[in-house]
Amino acid sequence: MSKKASANFPEIVLIGAGNLATHLGKCLYGKGFKIAQVYSKTQNSANILAKALKAEPITSFTSIKKDSDYYFICLKDDVINESVSKIPVVKGIVIHTSGSVSMGLLSEKFEHCGVLYPIQTFNKKIKKISFKHIPLCTEASNEYSLNSILQLANTLSDDVRLINSKQRQVIHLAAVFACNFSNHLFAIAADLLKKEEIDFSILYPLIVQTIEKVKSNTPLEVQTGPAVRSDLKTIEKHMELLQNEINYQEIYRVITGNILNSHQK
Amino acid sequence: MSKKASANFPEIVLIGAGNLATHLGKCLYGKGFKIAQVYSKTQNSANILAKALKAEPITSFTSIKKDSDYYFICLKDDVINESVSKIPVVKGIVIHTSGSVSMGLLSEKFEHCGVLYPIQTFNKKIKKISFKHIPLCTEASNEYSLNSILQLANTLSDDVRLINSKQRQVIHLAAVFACNFSNHLFAIAADLLKKEEIDFSILYPLIVQTIEKVKSNTPLEVQTGPAVRSDLKTIEKHMELLQNEINYQEIYRVITGNILNSHQK
Repeated sequence: MSKKASANFPEIVLIGAGNLATHLGKCLYGKGFKIAQVYSKTQNSANILAKALKAEPITSFTSIKKDSDYYFICLKDDVINESVSKIPVVKGIVIHTSGSVSMGLLSEKFEHCGVLYPIQTFNKKIKKISFKHIPLCTEASNEYSLNSILQLANTLSDDVRLINSKQRQVIHLAAVFACNFSNHLFAIAADLLKKEEIDFSILYPLIVQTIEKVKSNTPLEVQTGPAVRSDLKTIEKHMELLQNEINYQEIYRVITGNILNSHQK
Repeated sequence: MSKKASANFPEIVLIGAGNLATHLGKCLYGKGFKIAQVYSKTQNSANILAKALKAEPITSFTSIKKDSDYYFICLKDDVINESVSKIPVVKGIVIHTSGSVSMGLLSEKFEHCGVLYPIQTFNKKIKKISFKHIPLCTEASNEYSLNSILQLANTLSDDVRLINSKQRQVIHLAAVFACNFSNHLFAIAADLLKKEEIDFSILYPLIVQTIEKVKSNTPLEVQTGPAVRSDLKTIEKHMELLQNEINYQEIYRVITGNILNSHQK
């Protein structure tokens, strides 16, 4: 941490004003950090979040002040690369928050840099998210940066882990399978039910129990359903029921095939 | 209900001694129902459950007593068909508990019959499951059977629904997508993480949040991840990370393709 900040809480520039920037910014602000600026390419988004954090809204990378302690990049993965090239060279620690972007992207340009990737899904619609139990994956370009990032991360969460770029990318990939893809399967289930005028909520107790089971056993151990029983008759019936839903049929076929495979080993 | 039983609690024969038979039998027994017999093709299974329910263990269909009030068929879907042909013709109400088997299989043989399908995943390892909040899907061959089944079902659960065979089959299919397939995705995530020496529990807070979100919004609305953002760079990186896991790569490709499709509409 710079000398200027050590007397008080460090100063932060937030680059991004989306879902993660909003929740992270509010949490840091709540912990006493000073948020100096909020960058967004759209004036309205910058204004809204900056107002909530008593910060200066900016919409140009060249307006970024160079003497802050931390610069948090909270942008979508597909624009980080381009944006990093536009951020001025600064003395503070530049941190990105992405699961899939390597730290190398930052260390090529900034001496002090690192990663703070929260394993969570964020949505502005949700009023408040506590970071206390969210695993934070950190790494850094040097010991000074690492110590500073760890100190900050520990004020946010009880579960801060040192995770290298390769591991982080696998965690992100695993999260896509476990959460983004599961959510899509829920959407398919909801769509199938809707066509029979049944609300998706009928599956809530089953979904809750599915989650409970993997908390005390490995998911492999508690697999249920026709595929793990090699119940080919039921599988055939399901494929028939899906004859007008070729996309769903394809997903059913591929996952069922993989369950059959992985339980025959 | 037969006259014999109306003075007391009705009498039940359990056909099956597996996960569902165990939980359903214990729940019915706990509510005061008399369990007359427990059938299993293996003597040991019949003995264990019969002992817990103070019932007679039997291993032959011809030993099934003909004057009970209810006969609950709790067998795997792929053996129900063959087993029904072996059950003696009885006067009581014959009920199967399967999500995917049509009621017609029973009504061809038994005057009084119906279905009671609990939307839940059962496992003997779990000590006790309360049926109170489990949705029970019921239908019956005639009014007498329906009233009897509803009366029994209402003693078990607060969420009893009249659901026809077609609807029930779609609910079962939807449950396979939402739960059996999700669990398999959890298993894939766990496997990917294990190879990086990271425990699957790192994803618990994210999984819990994923479930929380679909309780207050439709799954379609709260979809996150690279596919819904059309973030092709990240998708490409993930496909590269999976280059030695062709089965996982296939699942990734198919689900991602379907998310891209369903959010471009």
